[in-house]
Amino acid sequence: MPAYATNMRLKFPILALIFEIITIILFGVFVDYDDGKGHGHDPHSNETHHEGNPMDLYPMFQDVHVMIFIGFGFLMTFLKRYGFSSVGINLLLAAFGLQWGLLMQGIWHLVDGKIKIDIFKIINADFSTATVLISFGAVLGKTSPVQLLIMTILEITIFSINEHLVATVLGANDVGASMIIHAYGAYFGLAVARVLYRPGLRNGHENDGSVYHSDLFAMIGTVFLWMFWPSFNSAIAEPGFTQLTAVINTYLSLAACVLSAYAISSLVEHKGKLDMVHIQNATLAGGVAVGTCADMNIGPFGAMLIGLIAGIISTLGFKFLSPILASNLGIQDTCGVHNLHGMPGILGGLAGIVAVALGKKENGDPAMQAAALASSLGFALVGGVVTGFIMKLPFWGQPPDQNCFDDSIYWEVPEEEEANEESLAHADHSKNKAEA
Amino acid sequence: MPAYATNMRLKFPILALIFEIITIILFGVFVDYDDGKGHGHDPHSNETHHEGNPMDLYPMFQDVHVMIFIGFGFLMTFLKRYGFSSVGINLLLAAFGLQWGLLMQGIWHLVDGKIKIDIFKIINADFSTATVLISFGAVLGKTSPVQLLIMTILEITIFSINEHLVATVLGANDVGASMIIHAYGAYFGLAVARVLYRPGLRNGHENDGSVYHSDLFAMIGTVFLWMFWPSFNSAIAEPGFTQLTAVINTYLSLAACVLSAYAISSLVEHKGKLDMVHIQNATLAGGVAVGTCADMNIGPFGAMLIGLIAGIISTLGFKFLSPILASNLGIQDTCGVHNLHGMPGILGGLAGIVAVALGKKENGDPAMQAAALASSLGFALVGGVVTGFIMKLPFWGQPPDQNCFDDSIYWEVPEEEEANEESLAHADHSKNKAEA
Amino acid sequence: MPAYATNMRLKFPILALIFEIITIILFGVFVDYDDGKGHGHDPHSNETHHEGNPMDLYPMFQDVHVMIFIGFGFLMTFLKRYGFSSVGINLLLAAFGLQWGLLMQGIWHLVDGKIKIDIFKIINADFSTATVLISFGAVLGKTSPVQLLIMTILEITIFSINEHLVATVLGANDVGASMIIHAYGAYFGLAVARVLYRPGLRNGHENDGSVYHSDLFAMIGTVFLWMFWPSFNSAIAEPGFTQLTAVINTYLSLAACVLSAYAISSLVEHKGKLDMVHIQNATLAGGVAVGTCADMNIGPFGAMLIGLIAGIISTLGFKFLSPILASNLGIQDTCGVHNLHGMPGILGGLAGIVAVALGKKENGDPAMQAAALASSLGFALVGGVVTGFIMKLPFWGQPPDQNCFDDSIYWEVPEEEEANEESLAHADHSKNKAEA
Repeated sequence: MPAYATNMRLKFPILALIFEIITIILFGVFVDYDDGKGHGHDPHSNETHHEGNPMDLYPMFQDVHVMIFIGFGFLMTFLKRYGFSSVGINLLLAAFGLQWGLLMQGIWHLVDGKIKIDIFKIINADFSTATVLISFGAVLGKTSPVQLLIMTILEITIFSINEHLVATVLGANDVGASMIIHAYGAYFGLAVARVLYRPGLRNGHENDGSVYHSDLFAMIGTVFLWMFWPSFNSAIAEPGFTQLTAVINTYLSLAACVLSAYAISSLVEHKGKLDMVHIQNATLAGGVAVGTCADMNIGPFGAMLIGLIAGIISTLGFKFLSPILASNLGIQDTCGVHNLHGMPGILGGLAGIVAVALGKKENGDPAMQAAALASSLGFALVGGVVTGFIMKLPFWGQPPDQNCFDDSIYWEVPEEEEANEESLAHADHSKNKAEA
Repeated sequence: MPAYATNMRLKFPILALIFEIITIILFGVFVDYDDGKGHGHDPHSNETHHEGNPMDLYPMFQDVHVMIFIGFGFLMTFLKRYGFSSVGINLLLAAFGLQWGLLMQGIWHLVDGKIKIDIFKIINADFSTATVLISFGAVLGKTSPVQLLIMTILEITIFSINEHLVATVLGANDVGASMIIHAYGAYFGLAVARVLYRPGLRNGHENDGSVYHSDLFAMIGTVFLWMFWPSFNSAIAEPGFTQLTAVINTYLSLAACVLSAYAISSLVEHKGKLDMVHIQNATLAGGVAVGTCADMNIGPFGAMLIGLIAGIISTLGFKFLSPILASNLGIQDTCGVHNLHGMPGILGGLAGIVAVALGKKENGDPAMQAAALASSLGFALVGGVVTGFIMKLPFWGQPPDQNCFDDSIYWEVPEEEEANEESLAHADHSKNKAEA
Repeated sequence: MPAYATNMRLKFPILALIFEIITIILFGVFVDYDDGKGHGHDPHSNETHHEGNPMDLYPMFQDVHVMIFIGFGFLMTFLKRYGFSSVGINLLLAAFGLQWGLLMQGIWHLVDGKIKIDIFKIINADFSTATVLISFGAVLGKTSPVQLLIMTILEITIFSINEHLVATVLGANDVGASMIIHAYGAYFGLAVARVLYRPGLRNGHENDGSVYHSDLFAMIGTVFLWMFWPSFNSAIAEPGFTQLTAVINTYLSLAACVLSAYAISSLVEHKGKLDMVHIQNATLAGGVAVGTCADMNIGPFGAMLIGLIAGIISTLGFKFLSPILASNLGIQDTCGVHNLHGMPGILGGLAGIVAVALGKKENGDPAMQAAALASSLGFALVGGVVTGFIMKLPFWGQPPDQNCFDDSIYWEVPEEEEANEESLAHADHSKNKAEA
């Protein structure tokens, strides 16, 4: 692959501006503010709208917003030389994705030919971007911004179809989106990663690892995700005690999950030491796995049990399953999204089937829950493979193997402090100087 | 300039304590809690008070609080050796500024001779500090804490006069404060920077640049500002659907702005690479530029168009205008506040004039909007020049050129890890040991 | 002490899983969701429950949650090689502690034999973990995860007894928990530190200090604690204007405290420079000290005076008292919790006595306030000594002196960037490779 292929100077700006301008035009035609008229029962995600102040859900929206932009963004900064891309491209994809998600999700719920935006809708728009950010984790370090913008538009479009099918057609429950976001995003990303398989990275890559400080930056992401997950799982729940139930189940599932993730990490590691990869990720699996039944009457005990199991499965997955997927199936999953979102997402879907079968949710139907899980996995795998082949086209600026996991291929990267002073003096990225 | 001039041992503590004690005395005389009596229409910032629970605005206040202390503080940590000052002096100035702002803003709205504090007032107090933090960005690395405390007290005093004039006398709209905070803070700071012009820094400074990790710290600031900007622009909006409008316009303007900032950054940079300076700053210009008309009926389309243009102008400003301002006009703008707050603030003011002229806001008057913009710029430039000359007096501990952009002149800075172990052993900043 | 003693491979996972499984079983027996029935006056912490939407307190809960997990976690990352443990073990202890706290606090308030969880209760559960995290600061770097889990279970159990005594039996006021959390947590931790005294660290330790970046990570913790402290002090206050009073008092106390902490830091340090240790900690003392009387009618003036004094005392404590405690009393207080939580907590208790004596709180009794302070200190000291002796048992994996303040004894730590490339290549912590 010739070196100039990764030069983004024309293809990236043109694609980004075209996408944005088309989006703005579509907003001009289809989108308006919600003025509070014509409310009532909304079939979206089988939840009813708030009837009170239109700002009631705003604090929860902001929690979800922090998860999307700080949580996902910093979680991926663990790589030693890929922090700019992790937090920066995360911002780019989510900023575009939320606009596209508003359109794609809104199209199923037009009122007088318009998508009427309210807080509920921008929460769902943020949610739709989460699928892309999860998939981003699977291909982190091995894709160009252009490839990722293409993935964003395709993944969210397909997500919106599956979401509509699951929530409205099947009428399945998935309040915390274990199936339609986590499992979908993970398997979509894994399918893309499989298609983009790089034999040259079979033996690892020097930059595919962390350093001390990058692991601390990643913990900013982990902890914000962990703290605000109760908002993620309850934001679109029925207001009142159902929402409270979703908060408490998620809070307790995550707490139990921390203990099992730490315990198993120590158990399987060399000399009983804790591994940052497990702590950064597996501690969150309880939030994923309790998602589908977060608003069901599973009891604090049930929520904690789900969290405990999720922490165990996720940690074992990082330790034993990821290496096998990479070496035997050609699935190079940079962030281990299979362990954080894939398996816990399926666990969440299964827990939802069981909970509904046990009558923990009024009007629930286990067959519909199972169909929802199958649909989410099916759309993910097929959509991911198709998207992967489109992304594999040779003109999107994919990095060569040796430049993977390295910001400097797409970013101006400052010289390091430890470099000698002479080199610093003229490599200085001063903002106030004219540059050649 | 002799070395001892930067020793803060007496002048800084004395000034800080005198300022604080005077403030406390003034609070003792003038300030009380709001007890909810005597509410009703308040002319402040031409908005009405919440009539409900006195805590209704509290979550928005906390979002704004995060923007002021984490957002501004960490945004400025991009410099390689100036992180302590960026986040630390930001905390100092904002903590003092909010107290002074409460007094200066409250003095126009006395009830029974008292300033009655509620959540609305502490949001406005936080807002008043934003002007100082923006100006701080223009002179970052080139001023002493003493100089900056003086700037704080003067800038907020002048801000409060202009704010009163704009909101109450002119009755202009500026809900997100594009004019009275962003343009005012930027041009005030640029005027100060002009007065404090340092010919010795004409060719840059070794420490006036970032390193890899400092750019990541700065992204913490960027992302928190980006996420919570809808709260900044809507916190003092009319409750209900007007507030919702302000949230949605800001959310969409920022999202569109990200795409244009990234596109233009790649377009103008060497080999199409993204530049962290643009990403850290220009992605926020959409929040600034949509401020004045955030609560107007400009449509989602209009908000996105404003964001798109703001991202383009801001990025181009960093690339082409800042070097010219520095070399031709002697304005050394460390953080490029002209590009993030100055031009987008003016754009916001102009957009407000157009939107009001098009009838997007009830009872709006384009002439008053124009007067508000002129007033904000006028107070900023005159106030900044006067303040600059006061700050230039030779006894405030201004750092010599060679010590600019370096924490170690005002902070105890620990030895670095890469230093050899012997030097570490006795340079250890242990908290538990008596120091000489 | 033989090297293998610190191998956690069996003892840590077994203890963690046993603790968690017992907790889950107790939750199965005793805990249920609050369904909103049977409310009314609740004697807990002498506050009444919200009667409105069960989610009303949720934004405040999230603020407190951020303080516990980001605030405390990152505040302790200031040590150069102990960041993983600081933020990671903080997460572990708080995640377990909140579950245990729910049980221990709930047991005093059973309804139909059940602990009914609502937002109020999970705020209190988060509060209970704060005591442990404060004590963790005193022993940071010198204890194993196993020792700390044992401390967690004991400290929260004892805390719950003292809390019940103070709030329900004595009927004392301590809305922001100056006494029952801050003073209790600090003196408990200091007592443990005294029992675990290490003569080998008398002359300091190479790793007991910060580096430039670790001090910046710590400022993330400081600033989040500083910003959200008004939520900490007001979360369980009487809704409405009492809660507003608690917010305003805390906001102003903290603002005044910043000025005095900075002033005194500069005054006592070499050449008038600011010391990061003071800035990271003493700026928060105003939040601690105003805690007990946050919801009392002490006036903005009174709150600021308390903050001013707290900032002075705390900074002086770091500079002059901590070295004496270490060298003369054998109390090695890693984070200086005596200066941030201990003395300001007592100051808060004393301010509460005075304020109640001056009639600033309806139905307050200064004698009961004094008894509450004495009780909190007594339980802390006795509980801490007993807990310390249990933690001192030789089979809990306590680190040897030379491995103190070093993550690598309990964590897999990645090689550093500055290491040469060859060593990096095979020390790579790739997630995708099978490890031996």
